[in-house]
Amino acid sequence: MSGHALVVGAGLAGSLTAVYLARRGYPVRVLERRGDPRAPGVREEGRSINLGLSQRGIVALREVGLLERLAPVTVPMRGRVVHLPDGLRFQPYGLAEDQILHSVLRHDLNVALVDEAERLGVEFCWGHRVTAVDRAKPAVTAIGPDGEEVHTADLVVGADGAFSAVRAHLGRGLRVDLHQEFLEWGYKELLIPVGDDGRPRTELRALHVWPGDDGLIVAHPNADGSLTATVFLPFAGDNGFAGLTEPAKVREFFARRFPDTLTLIPDVVEQFLDHEAASLVTVRTSPWHTATEDGRGVVLIGDAAHAVYPFFGQGMNAAFEDCSVLDRCLGERPHDLPRALAAFEAARRPHTDVLAELSKRNFVELRDKLRSPLFLVRKKADLALHRLFPDAWVPLYTLIAHTTVPYGEALDRARRQDRLLGGAAAALTGAALAGLIRRTRGRRRAS
Amino acid sequence: MSGHALVVGAGLAGSLTAVYLARRGYPVRVLERRGDPRAPGVREEGRSINLGLSQRGIVALREVGLLERLAPVTVPMRGRVVHLPDGLRFQPYGLAEDQILHSVLRHDLNVALVDEAERLGVEFCWGHRVTAVDRAKPAVTAIGPDGEEVHTADLVVGADGAFSAVRAHLGRGLRVDLHQEFLEWGYKELLIPVGDDGRPRTELRALHVWPGDDGLIVAHPNADGSLTATVFLPFAGDNGFAGLTEPAKVREFFARRFPDTLTLIPDVVEQFLDHEAASLVTVRTSPWHTATEDGRGVVLIGDAAHAVYPFFGQGMNAAFEDCSVLDRCLGERPHDLPRALAAFEAARRPHTDVLAELSKRNFVELRDKLRSPLFLVRKKADLALHRLFPDAWVPLYTLIAHTTVPYGEALDRARRQDRLLGGAAAALTGAALAGLIRRTRGRRRAS
Repeated sequence: MSGHALVVGAGLAGSLTAVYLARRGYPVRVLERRGDPRAPGVREEGRSINLGLSQRGIVALREVGLLERLAPVTVPMRGRVVHLPDGLRFQPYGLAEDQILHSVLRHDLNVALVDEAERLGVEFCWGHRVTAVDRAKPAVTAIGPDGEEVHTADLVVGADGAFSAVRAHLGRGLRVDLHQEFLEWGYKELLIPVGDDGRPRTELRALHVWPGDDGLIVAHPNADGSLTATVFLPFAGDNGFAGLTEPAKVREFFARRFPDTLTLIPDVVEQFLDHEAASLVTVRTSPWHTATEDGRGVVLIGDAAHAVYPFFGQGMNAAFEDCSVLDRCLGERPHDLPRALAAFEAARRPHTDVLAELSKRNFVELRDKLRSPLFLVRKKADLALHRLFPDAWVPLYTLIAHTTVPYGEALDRARRQDRLLGGAAAALTGAALAGLIRRTRGRRRAS
Repeated sequence: MSGHALVVGAGLAGSLTAVYLARRGYPVRVLERRGDPRAPGVREEGRSINLGLSQRGIVALREVGLLERLAPVTVPMRGRVVHLPDGLRFQPYGLAEDQILHSVLRHDLNVALVDEAERLGVEFCWGHRVTAVDRAKPAVTAIGPDGEEVHTADLVVGADGAFSAVRAHLGRGLRVDLHQEFLEWGYKELLIPVGDDGRPRTELRALHVWPGDDGLIVAHPNADGSLTATVFLPFAGDNGFAGLTEPAKVREFFARRFPDTLTLIPDVVEQFLDHEAASLVTVRTSPWHTATEDGRGVVLIGDAAHAVYPFFGQGMNAAFEDCSVLDRCLGERPHDLPRALAAFEAARRPHTDVLAELSKRNFVELRDKLRSPLFLVRKKADLALHRLFPDAWVPLYTLIAHTTVPYGEALDRARRQDRLLGGAAAALTGAALAGLIRRTRGRRRAS
């Protein structure tokens, strides 16, 4: 290792990368725009999508020795409970015992990471807003409680999120490609509280989904028995955030679209009207790093480098995998920072670009396809083949969530499987296919 | 009409839109970062791709009564002279007498537009750099020679180019989609001077092209007999801008790749090493406009709304067409600015998005395909069909350059024609096709 590291952003990616860098021997300073998340009252301010730790995030947290310590604040989810008008369906995530997700509150995870970083000697500067980045030194100018400060470092890590100030300043005068795209849907957070008897109001150990083409809800269980739900709706229209501004309309909408939420969330109307709708953005950019001739550099990680829609549950997991890959690259080239950063970008960017596309596609799938009989037949066939050939045939979701196969390779493999499945489907006569669909529909009605 | 208009940017799009707005009765003020282009010595500073006025630009200039006045500074180009290692080829642009382009220097055109705007009462504020835009008023903050000023207006037009400050400030906190992409090639401007005898060194009335997959030159004739050439090269590599830094290497490169330029540009090496390489960027964004409840608004036009690569020669022409369409939309809804701006965006954005893709594709065509026998056969067939059925069959280039058919419709029509041509090609046997290709190759070698 060599020199000092400066991390911008003390969110999940920033605090985990500070932990990694400190373990590698760097003196690390972190600049964060907001205040210390451990200050009283901060937890309640959160307006964030609930998090599901999957394999990539688990591997990174295990590498830095934090996974076991997080056990008290995580809840394992062994599958998905789908809320349909005619009742619930349980879909297990996978075959193996370890194919589970861990639900965790962003705040709890963030505090654990900041605590661990401080234990390793990392210095956090709260309330520091970045106003300039000079990639030639590199140096970061920030306005803190005592006015403007300039921080120099050998390695600057921009972990300051989808609207990264480091990214914006880093690109000045460079040929930077940037693709920023907002979804026409947004989200609000709702809390499904514990029952009056102190017990959870619904099956605890699963992710809950209310699918639909005009609105979606996803809820994660919390350690205290409550669930954190996120309602996704179009911004526009009478049944979107723009139209749902009157209590009567909101109640009517939830009663019609998500009837069981009225019992699960007694104050659903008040919560919905109280909370602000937030946006969903995809960001792809390049380059992710710059380097100086004397071996210093700046690099982006996490949402600053690749913000994705949350519909594959991979935002945090991809960010944690970034931290792990960056650490490996720094370890492999301990005396050549520019090449280490180039290796990191080359190893990650093609795969997170694929993740961005997959996350867009999964939105369409959740919204439109969960009701398509042909789609469901293919999903069932996909899972059936996985059961028959657990190693040779692995569904895309399983590859993404329960392995660390790079995203791009996971997609290539799923495409090869899809072509086989498509070929098999095409080989069926129209009559046989229609029969399959009829039988599937019959089973759905009957159950 | 109603209220005051403020235009940001006094380049081609900004000064033409100022002319249109003044003709419609708006009091107009223009803020421009640079100084007055009419000041002594400014003309020589230009570092810009030479311009070819085609039908869309011609129509707009004719609408404001400027076309005839520009005749002394424009040079008609009736076709393309292709410089190949074995000699020159002349390709006429089209069949009709009016299928020509007009070469013009950016500086001359800009001065004519600023003069005309001033004649109509437009006020130009030179040396004003925009630092903020408040879309709620709307108001524009700028730093000028006398310090910071705030300009309010009923209509603000952002015509400040591919790296538009208005666009950057307008989007704050909005769900703005932005796609910014740099080409891995850049460009430098070179001047082909008149000969020592005062006469042009090459055929005057055409656009000159030196095609190639590792470098391109495009040159436009100027009214004084010189030509303005633009050399496009990759940034990276020994034969790119990064590698061509020594006089001997530059001379060797031009001698090998563009041998006749050594006689056309006696000081080609000095010019090449003296000039900075500039970048090429594609920008697509949405929305293009915002509006207030009391009927004011901000709108982007030209490169600020849609920067495209120059390989279809449509950057300026699309910007001028914007000005014309915006004027038409304002005329159709004289008392409803928000709906006029919405109508403008709806009328233009889908088409300039298509233009961005076409301009990318034309780069690949110029670079790679001009040597592909199959591609040349199809091009020839395309032109032959146009000769046979001048109205029913029109090549894409002709639709883009010599008509005002909206870009998206032009592409749809060309795709239909391509499918017919593809079907016809597929119907040929392999042998017949091979024969065609052999004959074409034979002709090229023979000529």
